[in-house]
Amino acid sequence: MVRSGQQLHQEIARISKESSEEDFAEVAEQLNGLSVSEVTYLLGRLNKRRRAIVYRLLDKGLALKVFESLSPASQSDLLNALQEHDTAEIFLGLNPDDRVWLLDELPATVATKLMQGLDVEERDETAALLGYPEDAIGRRMSPRFIQLYPWLTVAEAMQRVRNDLGSAESIYYLPVVDDGRKVIGEVRLRHLMSHDDETTIEALMRPTHTAEATEDAEEVARRTARRGAFAVSIVDHEHRLVGIFTLDDAVRILEYEESEDVSRQGGVEPIRRPYLATPVMRLFRSRIVWLLVLAVGATLTVQVLEIFEDALAQVTVLALFVPLLIGTGGNTGNQAATTVTRAIALDHLQPRDIFRVLTREVRTGFLLGLTLGMLGFGITGFFYDFDVGLVIGLTLLAVCTVAASIGGIMPLIAKLVKVDPAVFSNPFITTFVDATGLVIYFLIAQAVLPEIS
Amino acid sequence: MVRSGQQLHQEIARISKESSEEDFAEVAEQLNGLSVSEVTYLLGRLNKRRRAIVYRLLDKGLALKVFESLSPASQSDLLNALQEHDTAEIFLGLNPDDRVWLLDELPATVATKLMQGLDVEERDETAALLGYPEDAIGRRMSPRFIQLYPWLTVAEAMQRVRNDLGSAESIYYLPVVDDGRKVIGEVRLRHLMSHDDETTIEALMRPTHTAEATEDAEEVARRTARRGAFAVSIVDHEHRLVGIFTLDDAVRILEYEESEDVSRQGGVEPIRRPYLATPVMRLFRSRIVWLLVLAVGATLTVQVLEIFEDALAQVTVLALFVPLLIGTGGNTGNQAATTVTRAIALDHLQPRDIFRVLTREVRTGFLLGLTLGMLGFGITGFFYDFDVGLVIGLTLLAVCTVAASIGGIMPLIAKLVKVDPAVFSNPFITTFVDATGLVIYFLIAQAVLPEIS
Repeated sequence: MVRSGQQLHQEIARISKESSEEDFAEVAEQLNGLSVSEVTYLLGRLNKRRRAIVYRLLDKGLALKVFESLSPASQSDLLNALQEHDTAEIFLGLNPDDRVWLLDELPATVATKLMQGLDVEERDETAALLGYPEDAIGRRMSPRFIQLYPWLTVAEAMQRVRNDLGSAESIYYLPVVDDGRKVIGEVRLRHLMSHDDETTIEALMRPTHTAEATEDAEEVARRTARRGAFAVSIVDHEHRLVGIFTLDDAVRILEYEESEDVSRQGGVEPIRRPYLATPVMRLFRSRIVWLLVLAVGATLTVQVLEIFEDALAQVTVLALFVPLLIGTGGNTGNQAATTVTRAIALDHLQPRDIFRVLTREVRTGFLLGLTLGMLGFGITGFFYDFDVGLVIGLTLLAVCTVAASIGGIMPLIAKLVKVDPAVFSNPFITTFVDATGLVIYFLIAQAVLPEIS
Repeated sequence: MVRSGQQLHQEIARISKESSEEDFAEVAEQLNGLSVSEVTYLLGRLNKRRRAIVYRLLDKGLALKVFESLSPASQSDLLNALQEHDTAEIFLGLNPDDRVWLLDELPATVATKLMQGLDVEERDETAALLGYPEDAIGRRMSPRFIQLYPWLTVAEAMQRVRNDLGSAESIYYLPVVDDGRKVIGEVRLRHLMSHDDETTIEALMRPTHTAEATEDAEEVARRTARRGAFAVSIVDHEHRLVGIFTLDDAVRILEYEESEDVSRQGGVEPIRRPYLATPVMRLFRSRIVWLLVLAVGATLTVQVLEIFEDALAQVTVLALFVPLLIGTGGNTGNQAATTVTRAIALDHLQPRDIFRVLTREVRTGFLLGLTLGMLGFGITGFFYDFDVGLVIGLTLLAVCTVAASIGGIMPLIAKLVKVDPAVFSNPFITTFVDATGLVIYFLIAQAVLPEIS
């Protein structure tokens, strides 16, 4: 059981303090009394040096479990801080698929050195996974499965399961293959146990979910998770079994991808490490690029405003509403973008739905604009004058309609041109909508207000 | 295997067209040839009426699987469209925990009617779950588990497993309880099978993860998922076993919660239905409230600008940079808020870390402001004049620092006052930062520019 955050915090404070005083013996005892998740949490709150010290104090078994529970990025940070022999030892302890996760994070030189440390079979297993393209499910699957044949009896199958109890990734999901190693179905241990020894696998096998090893890992993970499937069979282009991919690995990938999407939506590169364990310089780097891109985009608004500088000079009151109007436009755009991006992720929407989406967003945006526009007209018309109220009202109506439409189709266009929709992130859409909104605003103003020459 | 989206799409087009022509026989045959995920996908693209028609054409078995794979909101929509007897039948087919998901969505009257349809035992099981507070893990756990005692032998344990093969939620995760029904450990079927018949459970049981039935479902789900735990034991306040919670249910809850967080971050209420299956009016409702709140907040910017109206009149050029400056401020604030909100969700951060976060965000914001400020100064100084450049540069420096700080601590404050951090969403922070940014901008302008009296 995880103890209360508070207790844990004090414990951490003490330990990290002491570990800086190098008072090892006692700290070690303390640490090895903690659960895996407590140690992981603790490591996430320490700086690089302390993390290495604390980690080296862990018992072998605990150390490995903790290592496995870290994100690949944190794993690689930790390895960098440890001595070489620790590194090799840890690496040996990992499963093939976990090794690949890690290797993707490590500098090539370190990676190759570590690979050399493996025995032949281990290295082949790992290399096989590494053979698949980045982001392919092939890199995340496990090559350690128990395959059954349709002609086996339940008794024979149970024997196979018992033989591989120790090594197999899962004994609960058992893919069935024909003599050409092609996947033809699955059997759950549960069904195996509920039939008598003579029954043949053929009689009780069921259709199974498969994915090609080259498919995108996130998509396969999502499909697996949504179906609540225990595991799926991973096959090559000839539908031959090459590995299995289990739900817990799917969850791991989704947590990782969720971080990416949420981050991008907020216009920041994912840090993939615990916040407190991330150096400020890295936080800076994860944000500056986006900020610059967006700032450059925003200079568009300056240019637009320059065009209308005279109008601004003649009717200063127009300037007062600029933030309100573009803000509202940006929000409307974000809402649409968020909803659609989400729908794409859950694959409720395909690029070919773009026109259905457009018509729905135009209608939604119009309704939103109508509501806000009438309010805006009423309030502004009352506090300022009728004409200004009219300008604000009409602008809100137009801006909301346009913003919702743009925000709604942007993610689909991104998908269409094979870009991650999250990259057309909300800040991006906001900036784009800002400029458009300003043009609309001043065009309406010029049309309505007599005093603008 | 799921067939290509394109084929599927044509199939859908045909079926939904025909089903509106009520050409049942053939459509039914078509439909029952599809996989669960294909039918689910199809339903997600049809309007309410067609969905009911299509659903009624499904074979019993398929129909139930499809229903289970729908989101609770979609389930309740579908029930509303179906006849009563269908409804009751479907309800009977569900597991207790799935029933509770659904009941939470249904109007009370319907819910009670459905409950009456259950036999005594079923009703008790369901009612027990309903007894727990909303959002409690107690509502999401399964009361159908196989419990073992330390004094059982492996042989006896295996017998218990075989007896409940059909009914139990999981036969792979087996909680061990003492004679007071208190949870003292777990055994995996895998370990059971790897030991000989005489071994006692006590000898091979291991510590297990537990959660109290009243704990927040999302937190427990996250913990379960992060640990890649197969399942956790759910206990009452006296640590007595009341249910188990399996990884696949955890995944389901996380998908659901992820939707909520991502939506709120984009300033829109989650629709919890497939996009195309959501009426435009519902899309409108999911957005208008937020938009209004934000618009009202944005009137703050109007008031700020009014204060500085004279400055604007005297130096119109100031107005040109308003969108750029507040835009950049908003983006910086969003970045910080996104990162911190995420860290809270992954529980890398506690409210008590607020000062550590503040110091880090001040530093990060300062670095960001310094970079952008120097650029802004250079460019504006060159295209306009030195003074204006100075104003822009200093403002960017100040705004970024302030925005990052506010964006960073807002989510923690939310957490501190027990509000969902996602509710202090990015648009909210943007609006807040906009007003602050404007004040900073004009104060600096007044200090630097001589022509402002």
